[in-house]
Amino acid sequence: MPDLAGILPELAAEMAAIKDRGTVAGYIPQLGKVDPDQFGIAVMMNDGRVFTAGDAGKPFSIQSISKVFSLTLALGHVGDALWRRVGREPSGNPFNSIVQLERENGIPRNPFINAGAIVVADILLQGHQPKEAIGEALRFVQYLADDETITIDRAVAASERATGFRNFALANYMRAFDNLRHPPELTLGVYFHLCAIEMSCVQLARAGRYLAHGGRHPDTPHSVVSAERARRINALMLTCGHYDGSGDFAFKVGIPGKSGVGGGILGIVPGVASLAVWSPGLNANGNSKLGSQALEILARRMNWSIFAPRG
Amino acid sequence: MPDLAGILPELAAEMAAIKDRGTVAGYIPQLGKVDPDQFGIAVMMNDGRVFTAGDAGKPFSIQSISKVFSLTLALGHVGDALWRRVGREPSGNPFNSIVQLERENGIPRNPFINAGAIVVADILLQGHQPKEAIGEALRFVQYLADDETITIDRAVAASERATGFRNFALANYMRAFDNLRHPPELTLGVYFHLCAIEMSCVQLARAGRYLAHGGRHPDTPHSVVSAERARRINALMLTCGHYDGSGDFAFKVGIPGKSGVGGGILGIVPGVASLAVWSPGLNANGNSKLGSQALEILARRMNWSIFAPRG
Amino acid sequence: MPDLAGILPELAAEMAAIKDRGTVAGYIPQLGKVDPDQFGIAVMMNDGRVFTAGDAGKPFSIQSISKVFSLTLALGHVGDALWRRVGREPSGNPFNSIVQLERENGIPRNPFINAGAIVVADILLQGHQPKEAIGEALRFVQYLADDETITIDRAVAASERATGFRNFALANYMRAFDNLRHPPELTLGVYFHLCAIEMSCVQLARAGRYLAHGGRHPDTPHSVVSAERARRINALMLTCGHYDGSGDFAFKVGIPGKSGVGGGILGIVPGVASLAVWSPGLNANGNSKLGSQALEILARRMNWSIFAPRG
Amino acid sequence: MPDLAGILPELAAEMAAIKDRGTVAGYIPQLGKVDPDQFGIAVMMNDGRVFTAGDAGKPFSIQSISKVFSLTLALGHVGDALWRRVGREPSGNPFNSIVQLERENGIPRNPFINAGAIVVADILLQGHQPKEAIGEALRFVQYLADDETITIDRAVAASERATGFRNFALANYMRAFDNLRHPPELTLGVYFHLCAIEMSCVQLARAGRYLAHGGRHPDTPHSVVSAERARRINALMLTCGHYDGSGDFAFKVGIPGKSGVGGGILGIVPGVASLAVWSPGLNANGNSKLGSQALEILARRMNWSIFAPRG
Repeated sequence: MPDLAGILPELAAEMAAIKDRGTVAGYIPQLGKVDPDQFGIAVMMNDGRVFTAGDAGKPFSIQSISKVFSLTLALGHVGDALWRRVGREPSGNPFNSIVQLERENGIPRNPFINAGAIVVADILLQGHQPKEAIGEALRFVQYLADDETITIDRAVAASERATGFRNFALANYMRAFDNLRHPPELTLGVYFHLCAIEMSCVQLARAGRYLAHGGRHPDTPHSVVSAERARRINALMLTCGHYDGSGDFAFKVGIPGKSGVGGGILGIVPGVASLAVWSPGLNANGNSKLGSQALEILARRMNWSIFAPRG
Repeated sequence: MPDLAGILPELAAEMAAIKDRGTVAGYIPQLGKVDPDQFGIAVMMNDGRVFTAGDAGKPFSIQSISKVFSLTLALGHVGDALWRRVGREPSGNPFNSIVQLERENGIPRNPFINAGAIVVADILLQGHQPKEAIGEALRFVQYLADDETITIDRAVAASERATGFRNFALANYMRAFDNLRHPPELTLGVYFHLCAIEMSCVQLARAGRYLAHGGRHPDTPHSVVSAERARRINALMLTCGHYDGSGDFAFKVGIPGKSGVGGGILGIVPGVASLAVWSPGLNANGNSKLGSQALEILARRMNWSIFAPRG
Repeated sequence: MPDLAGILPELAAEMAAIKDRGTVAGYIPQLGKVDPDQFGIAVMMNDGRVFTAGDAGKPFSIQSISKVFSLTLALGHVGDALWRRVGREPSGNPFNSIVQLERENGIPRNPFINAGAIVVADILLQGHQPKEAIGEALRFVQYLADDETITIDRAVAASERATGFRNFALANYMRAFDNLRHPPELTLGVYFHLCAIEMSCVQLARAGRYLAHGGRHPDTPHSVVSAERARRINALMLTCGHYDGSGDFAFKVGIPGKSGVGGGILGIVPGVASLAVWSPGLNANGNSKLGSQALEILARRMNWSIFAPRG
Repeated sequence: MPDLAGILPELAAEMAAIKDRGTVAGYIPQLGKVDPDQFGIAVMMNDGRVFTAGDAGKPFSIQSISKVFSLTLALGHVGDALWRRVGREPSGNPFNSIVQLERENGIPRNPFINAGAIVVADILLQGHQPKEAIGEALRFVQYLADDETITIDRAVAASERATGFRNFALANYMRAFDNLRHPPELTLGVYFHLCAIEMSCVQLARAGRYLAHGGRHPDTPHSVVSAERARRINALMLTCGHYDGSGDFAFKVGIPGKSGVGGGILGIVPGVASLAVWSPGLNANGNSKLGSQALEILARRMNWSIFAPRG
């Protein structure tokens, strides 16, 4: 196997030299203030080795990456009944999402677009107060990463609530189809707080390990999910994890991944590693520009693509 | 490894017992006449072993599965310049395809929807007469399968031409955006003939071996495509290979695959095997109903999902 | 001229005999309880004569008919600057409305679809508290009808607020495009209250007189709007007044009209008459079934179509 | 009544002074060569008086204005059965037309968008050879205008056929829904030839007189259509006659009209006049820029709006 201890710092240096770093998400003031020159990467090998480079320890807003963890948790609550309220197909471009809600009677295409994750948040809220649901989800992420210092940035959550008119539109639209069980403002309260979880690359890669380990929590004797469910979550990340750039990410990088507008990407190499990369500038599809490039280079050097014969 | 020699006949027997076999594609008279009770499967292991069951030797119309071979051939002609005329993203549902052509200036979303494969056929036609282009493509498939007996069913091709008004609509629409270089009837002539190639499961699984072998033709010292290109074609099959059921196939089966309305599915387990399954009845998304079910069972028993840790 | 005093009772009797009366709007509980057997009609001739039949004096919820009055009032506030925030084109079917908001950057197609009327309500709210804006609009309608007994049914307004998730979706969507200046819940508060105005056919036909009189209030020496503006509002009613049945209403009836889901229709015969009809059952496009039929018969007998040579 | 003999030359002079004359349609080479500085207008009063100014005698390609005459003729052939194959609603913008064909099972929204007029041409073709159908339609227009010198410009028809890929797409799409009874190339042959009819403003205004006369041919004792049908055709012109600018034309001009990309507009003032205006430059919606402006000025001065009280 190529030497990760050598490759990661090289990769970080290569990324540091790139001038065109994409555009930091501006629609949430707190995210817009982040320094675009940052880049971090962390790899948790299934054998327990850890490799990091750059700003791997610096916390950032995980945003949509939280959709992976909230889906996992909601599947634990209601099992495959969840799929009666959310689909499993890529959504096409953003334009389609609200049209397809109309055509498909308020059932969002998958749990990784906003509409789908709002339904997932609605499931997490069932039988709880918003505060409890948020607390449970945060504790779940802390458990996955084995790190109780992970927190929610309440200023980011408040900022998203104040400006998230499209999400309010989506939630009300699905409510009109009875695919939301709680008042939109409560469900969105849960949703916005989960998006505002702050994690470093190291914490994020740790939290993703169960997906590389066939569902097992490597620090415990327990399974987080069954092997089948882990495999299926990976499949959803591959087909739907990068908005309208999912096909391209599969084409170029070839591993299950989930990106967030904070500039983070969680990547899974089943049976091999869980990894996280972060750089705040985004490409046209809203995915981390340097993060995507770094993962493409890394996956090629390590032969990590799930579409290639393994060594 | 579980014993394929035992599993396949069991699987064929299990499938034979199923009453609800889906609906045979009726829009092409020749396809509508096929007996829905048929089922065949063939697996070509990378180590050279061959396993078959049921009607594995019976030829059927491969239809859209030909899109994998014509894409491979067209990439050989023009390289990555092809991607200036065709995208790499899942298309969402059929309804969207023509809307997205409009929104995206005549660039189809991917090479495995009809619009995209028509552009690919247009590329194959470049510098050739239709007859030559069709002949070249047929010989390419014969070479991949190492079998010169593979033929085109001209009655099926003629039937598709006579009734393929939607394809004529798509071709003319793209021509209006200058994304077709030849008269629509010539390009569609090539397209319809490639859809009408007849192959058995055994021949199809043989033809797909290069994708399981990292691009190499296992019967020769030559590469069909580079390892990178093979991996990328596999990624496209995973994200776009089953129309609007691609996400679901990835979720349930977890291997790159391409289906056709003739009831065939080509599946690739990178580094492990190329396989083909056939049963004429289709599910709501236009994919072989029993074929999909059989592959789900087989992939689970063999732990073939690319989203799972490998043994 | 044919004898209206004789025709109207005949028409009411003819309508009373019809069995298939359409479907009463069920999504607002208060509207759902209305007895479908009712039918009323009132005609205010420009020469001052008044003809009525059936339940012409019974108040009903005017719903979307209020959009005519709120547009008139908002044009008075901001003049043609209103057209920078709302278009003047028919919208096609409901499915399109939210797609077109996306395509057209949050600018609704016309002021008579919900999205457009929400923007109009937002304009009425400018510089006011919701209560004041609602009060001003109610007094305006009272002034037009010269009848201070007209009221708002607050239970209907509350019911619409509690169930109007699609309207909340539209408002939030437009807010995301900065085409709403106030918090969606405040703007919608105004919107829902205007929809909940209760009027009888007599009151409604009286309120519409200015549009038949070239903009003049026939009870006063004053103009409500200029002759040009009156003519333009009539044009909008003709092209956009009956949702996706506007073309059909123009084709069959041939006069400017505006319908509401409460079962009312306001009709204008420029220079001749203002009229109102009411029957609670709706056709597939959401317009009063018997109301549309009655107007078609009446317009034919009176030769009132604006598309025919006048007597 | 204001003095038309004085007004028209003034109007022509006013138009001649305008610098921004819109853009001549470029997609058909023959149309692209037309001199944009031309402007003509002709008014046929119902009392028989004729007023003209500018290039009123110069023939131009009537293009979509032919849709009015072919609809009239097709209604004569099959009566209201035509409405089972074509709708009567405005279409929203061009983007929607093909989506709505999909959603509405191949039934075009109205007879004045291309898809609808292609179905109308298909009806004209029923029981005929294309040559006969074209001949019948041409003779019908000659009869309406009482002028046998009117011809078809075959070079324009051939040019449209050679470049009309979108129309081929629409025709094939409708054929897929069985809403075309003849091979698309034959139906389109009829369609393209009718679009290529050449007429001057004087000829066009003469041909439209039956719509201003309640269906009667003023030169003969005969009716072209019933009074009801004339009124309904006028209603369709008002709601659908100017593509996605129909609402705006109704709002500003206020008379039934039909425009063509050759720069002509036919206008009808029921009971008063038939008129035609021509200037080759188009606005953003594909309607004659100066033609629309001239009609707005003229309608205002003459108080011709059908939405205003008549004088």
